[in-house]
Amino acid sequence: MIKIALGQIEIVPGRPDLNTTAMLTMMDEARRQHTDIIIFPEMAIPGYLLGDTWEQLAFLRECEECGRKIIAASHELCVIFGNVGIDWHKHGDDGRVRKYNALFTATNGTLCGQDNFCYPFRIKTLHPNYREFDDTRHFYSLRKLALELNQPPSELLQPINVIINGRSLTIGGILCEDGWNDDYPLNPLAILNAKAKLDLIVNISCSPFTLGKNNKRNRVFSKQAANFGVPLVYVNAVGIQNNGKTIYTFDGFSTIYNSQGEIINGCHNFQPELTIVDIDDPAINSTYNNASTLSKDDNIDSVYQSLTYGIQKFMEQTGLTKVVIGVSGGIDSAVNAALFANAIGAENILLVNMPSVYNSDTTKGLSEKLASNLGCRYAILPIQDSVDHTIKQITTSLVTDLKTGTKSTLEVSSFVSENIQARDRSARVLAGMAAAFGAAFTCNANKAEFTVGYSTLYGDQAGFIASLGDLWKHQVYALGDYLNTKVFPSPVIPQGIFDIVPSAELSLAQAVDEGKGDPLIYPYHDYLFRAFMEWWNRATPEDILTWYAAGELDARLGCEAGLTAKLFSTPADFIADLERWWKLYTGMGVAKRIQAPPVLAISRRAYGFDHREAQNQSYFTSVYYALKARLLSTK
Amino acid sequence: MIKIALGQIEIVPGRPDLNTTAMLTMMDEARRQHTDIIIFPEMAIPGYLLGDTWEQLAFLRECEECGRKIIAASHELCVIFGNVGIDWHKHGDDGRVRKYNALFTATNGTLCGQDNFCYPFRIKTLHPNYREFDDTRHFYSLRKLALELNQPPSELLQPINVIINGRSLTIGGILCEDGWNDDYPLNPLAILNAKAKLDLIVNISCSPFTLGKNNKRNRVFSKQAANFGVPLVYVNAVGIQNNGKTIYTFDGFSTIYNSQGEIINGCHNFQPELTIVDIDDPAINSTYNNASTLSKDDNIDSVYQSLTYGIQKFMEQTGLTKVVIGVSGGIDSAVNAALFANAIGAENILLVNMPSVYNSDTTKGLSEKLASNLGCRYAILPIQDSVDHTIKQITTSLVTDLKTGTKSTLEVSSFVSENIQARDRSARVLAGMAAAFGAAFTCNANKAEFTVGYSTLYGDQAGFIASLGDLWKHQVYALGDYLNTKVFPSPVIPQGIFDIVPSAELSLAQAVDEGKGDPLIYPYHDYLFRAFMEWWNRATPEDILTWYAAGELDARLGCEAGLTAKLFSTPADFIADLERWWKLYTGMGVAKRIQAPPVLAISRRAYGFDHREAQNQSYFTSVYYALKARLLSTK
Repeated sequence: MIKIALGQIEIVPGRPDLNTTAMLTMMDEARRQHTDIIIFPEMAIPGYLLGDTWEQLAFLRECEECGRKIIAASHELCVIFGNVGIDWHKHGDDGRVRKYNALFTATNGTLCGQDNFCYPFRIKTLHPNYREFDDTRHFYSLRKLALELNQPPSELLQPINVIINGRSLTIGGILCEDGWNDDYPLNPLAILNAKAKLDLIVNISCSPFTLGKNNKRNRVFSKQAANFGVPLVYVNAVGIQNNGKTIYTFDGFSTIYNSQGEIINGCHNFQPELTIVDIDDPAINSTYNNASTLSKDDNIDSVYQSLTYGIQKFMEQTGLTKVVIGVSGGIDSAVNAALFANAIGAENILLVNMPSVYNSDTTKGLSEKLASNLGCRYAILPIQDSVDHTIKQITTSLVTDLKTGTKSTLEVSSFVSENIQARDRSARVLAGMAAAFGAAFTCNANKAEFTVGYSTLYGDQAGFIASLGDLWKHQVYALGDYLNTKVFPSPVIPQGIFDIVPSAELSLAQAVDEGKGDPLIYPYHDYLFRAFMEWWNRATPEDILTWYAAGELDARLGCEAGLTAKLFSTPADFIADLERWWKLYTGMGVAKRIQAPPVLAISRRAYGFDHREAQNQSYFTSVYYALKARLLSTK
Repeated sequence: MIKIALGQIEIVPGRPDLNTTAMLTMMDEARRQHTDIIIFPEMAIPGYLLGDTWEQLAFLRECEECGRKIIAASHELCVIFGNVGIDWHKHGDDGRVRKYNALFTATNGTLCGQDNFCYPFRIKTLHPNYREFDDTRHFYSLRKLALELNQPPSELLQPINVIINGRSLTIGGILCEDGWNDDYPLNPLAILNAKAKLDLIVNISCSPFTLGKNNKRNRVFSKQAANFGVPLVYVNAVGIQNNGKTIYTFDGFSTIYNSQGEIINGCHNFQPELTIVDIDDPAINSTYNNASTLSKDDNIDSVYQSLTYGIQKFMEQTGLTKVVIGVSGGIDSAVNAALFANAIGAENILLVNMPSVYNSDTTKGLSEKLASNLGCRYAILPIQDSVDHTIKQITTSLVTDLKTGTKSTLEVSSFVSENIQARDRSARVLAGMAAAFGAAFTCNANKAEFTVGYSTLYGDQAGFIASLGDLWKHQVYALGDYLNTKVFPSPVIPQGIFDIVPSAELSLAQAVDEGKGDPLIYPYHDYLFRAFMEWWNRATPEDILTWYAAGELDARLGCEAGLTAKLFSTPADFIADLERWWKLYTGMGVAKRIQAPPVLAISRRAYGFDHREAQNQSYFTSVYYALKARLLSTK
């Protein structure tokens, strides 16, 4: 009988002290339950997303010291954990000390694994270098080590042999991406399996939540276990980690598969948990395998869970307890208010409505109704006086040309005055109110707005976190509906907020009561923008126009069939719209995102570190121009 | 006789069309001058820093097509150039189409090089994965290809054989980092040299300006040429490229070394140039080798050149012609105003002074004198009325608790009111004035302020570019002096601006006329912060305190000897200061930098993409705490 504990800890990134304590506590509990092996996530001690903290030698020494504490505590218990593995005598490609993303195995106070490898730990072979990952910047992979040592990687990939209860166990220990080898020229697990009859496969991970990822992971890992006929333990962390611009939740969902590839047990998502399994008793745990733990993970339920957990943990990590949210009577701010009220308590939230002359009684009323339904604090701070003062000051202040002595004044256009309103709301009122309330204020922008910079810098784009910044507009509506029907006992977001046309209400041209609003047609632009920025191979105007010309566009984008034909009566209209938004996405949108708040990520591609970009000129290819000329001339 | 042209073009990143035209034009000129070989920089066609644009298949096809145009134009001229090399039949580690950072050689309309390699181009072996570089995210290296093909890298590294004027030439073609192999386990040039007697070494680069880099490059490349006894041609680009958060200038300085390692000719810095050399006549060109082209490149003269060029190009690339600069009478805004006035013309600049009750007549007078000396446009927009209105509105607006019905009001502390002033200046006045003037406004913050977030978000931290954001305070002073004495015919920055104490003038505690100002003691903190963020192995409180205890700190940091002893009378004082700034650097400073404007980089480490960071908790190691306890108890 071998009892294995899945040590799904919450990793606090950059806090080896706290993480080590959490591990030691779980090890004690595991010992009390007569566990043989406890397994912790990848980079359990330091955390994974730390930016360039890896360049601090004192931090590296601290991680090593914490690792020694875990090793020393491995009496009567074999412990497998992730930490940075350091070779102080070698250097990386950057000339800094050599660091590996490593898996350590210890028992009776001693590290195992140096019987068949040059280090008493195992190192990651496949370094993800896409999305938000940055492994190759900091760590030396097994592939690089193989080149350096002039050996094939297959020689270096070695199982770990341990003695548990007098029984010799051969473990294939891998790290995260090593189990996702489809696109790589080598398969670490197949190599390990060919080396020896494995008793157990261990995959330690630090894998962020992504919509739809867990179902895929279950398919991939289940197949691995079944193919090799070996039980597989996947241990992931919970908590949040960030890359500055992008905040990731880690959902845990640590799982153990039997040698037939069936899930026999696991940990629940978004909570630290110690789950103990006897791998010689591969019966399926029906308590774990119910719908709630293994539900479809690409639906709005998952979005809600991840965002709520992310908000709670981000507040905790930054030491904030209260927030100020500007509410306009529109859907984005309403959903954000309901999300925060549910996550951190209505009593910690101050909703602020900031009407100008352009705000309708409709939206003012809806804001107040929302606040009342949620039971938050509420204040109304009109901005018209301040906006009038600013416009007057700008248009009457003398500008003196000190070369010629001539004096003049400036003019404020309608567009300029719209942005003055937006900045007055955020940088003047919300920032001031938040500081006075001992809080931070949120950014309520959605992903479509982020894409084309349809928000004002230092205005509605400002805030300490963009909690809806990775949701397309249709997802914002769906989340609002979910909050109303599944989360709160009775609907909190008034129906009127769902029904009105989305509008910034910054001018008479955006009067909601006349059905006027945003220039964005979300049922189409949500999908167009998704193709621009979210697809693995990103669509450009050349692709879009090609599909449009072939009559395939709606199907390709995944929007409602016939929609583009309905929206654009001529190719010229279609092209004008396409070019307008592409220029904004690759132009002002970039400039604005550089100064945007961090986004709470849920998708396969969120803005920030997962969407690296340069502030360059917008580009259309020569093929695009040729196609455009053809379409416009045939018209 | 072999005539070689160094095609130092300006690369416009993401504009293959423009870059191809620039190359074709230079090729025509080279042909007119009977040149045999023309060499262009690395990634000459697409540009180098493009973020994730590499994921757009249409963009890749465009680059390939542009490459074909260059190849087709290679009649009577051998052309060597950088472009993305695509293998449409293979994929990278991310599953996307395989891309190489490649060197192409063409003559008579045909690519050379497939006689001894699997592609008709050469690929980069060493991918830099430090600082701002991100090669491994997008490109497949020769090291990876070697692993995939199960061959040692040395087998794949092959010279290129071309026939020029009926003479067979063996060229060792490498890309940028391949020539900087010190920290890597293999040396591409040594391998190539061992393969065949090389006639020429070609290093095509896309290498950003960094203070002090050119002198090092000259030492390294000169040694390579001499060691192998082969002439070496280094071709670099000019222009600017950016990673969103960080803007780099490319200084060119393309150089040709003879087989003794002496510089025989080259291009001037920061300008496109075609320089033609006969490599069979290795005489040293005395016109090129004068003090101005090969001057010391780590002095303030280089800083001035790089910043000026960067400002000009960034304005050009973003389509801006005018700027608004807030001037306070302090050194940062004064230096920025002089820098911009010189770079883009005083007539395009509107300086705005925004006094509150806390601003002294001294600084108001100095601002006006500065504007007058520069001959800019000038306006005074006081902020006190607006600030008073905001404070009154915040403190008198009723906050209703909608759960209980209780009403209350908020209070504004002195600290909160300071930030209200800063935001009023930037987000209200400067942003509004800039929009009305058809301009953008600058961020005047320096690197010390960036380090610890000593600036207000949406306030003085805002702006479209932080042109001084990579300069420590002492460098700002030095640049001001340089502008006064070397750039303008007579001093433009009044002496009083150099003489007053640096101060934000946001409260009575910061009254300059009483000598009160910033809490930052720049002659010490500049150097402390540099150790935190700029050193290759970054110093942490543990290191700092260790050196302090050993009496080595001033020498280690490079600040004035005896300074720490003078500033801090007790270890407790020293420790309080250290912890205060470390917490800000790793805490609020990070949160602010996430939303900071792009920084114009000059140093080995600028904020942004070259200083990746996560918004985590501040950390002190256990060794630090032990040392602190010892120091405080022995006192």
